[in-house]
Amino acid sequence: MVRVIAKNYLKSEKIAEAAPLFREMIEATRKENGCIEYRLHIDTKDPTCYVFVEEWADQNALDAHCKSAHFTRIIPQIGTFHAKPGETLIMDEFK
Amino acid sequence: MVRVIAKNYLKSEKIAEAAPLFREMIEATRKENGCIEYRLHIDTKDPTCYVFVEEWADQNALDAHCKSAHFTRIIPQIGTFHAKPGETLIMDEFK
Repeated sequence: MVRVIAKNYLKSEKIAEAAPLFREMIEATRKENGCIEYRLHIDTKDPTCYVFVEEWADQNALDAHCKSAHFTRIIPQIGTFHAKPGETLIMDEFK
Repeated sequence: MVRVIAKNYLKSEKIAEAAPLFREMIEATRKENGCIEYRLHIDTKDPTCYVFVEEWADQNALDAHCKSAHFTRIIPQIGTFHAKPGETLIMDEFK
C-alpha cells in the first residue's frame, strides 16, 4: 500500500479552467488497476489550494499512474495554472 | 464530510516514545462517532514526518474529536516531541 498527498496551489483566475481537467483526471484515474482512492479536496481556508488524497495498491501501480496517458497529458496542463510550487508526499502507513 | 491532513515533524530521538501514543490515539479515535477514517502515515523521504489522514462525517464530529479526552491528553504530549511546526489542512471534497 502507498498513500499520496499532492498539494497544488492554483492561480485564482485559472480555477474555472482547471475544474474540468481535474474531473477528467479523477474519472480516468479511478479506472486504473491498483487505484484504491483518488479524491480531490479544497482547503477550507484557501480556495486556491487543491489537495489530492490517493491510495495505491503498491509502488508499481503508482508508477503506472504517473506514466498513464491521462496523467502525462493533463497534469502538465494543470501545472501551467500553478501559482506557486506545491508539495507531493509519498507515504507508508504507520502500524 | 470533512477531510483533514495533519502533518507532524518529530524530533528523531522522540519517535520511539511517540509511537505508543500514536497507537493509543488511533485506537481511541476510530471508536468516535462520525469518524470515517483516521490513519497515520510516515513520509517515505523523511522518517520524522508523520501525517494523519482523516475523514469525519461533519464539522461537529471533528469538533467533538478535538475536545475528546484522548485528544486533549495525548496531542499536547506529542506536541512536546515536535521538531518544528507542522501543518493541519481542513478540506472539503471537490466535486
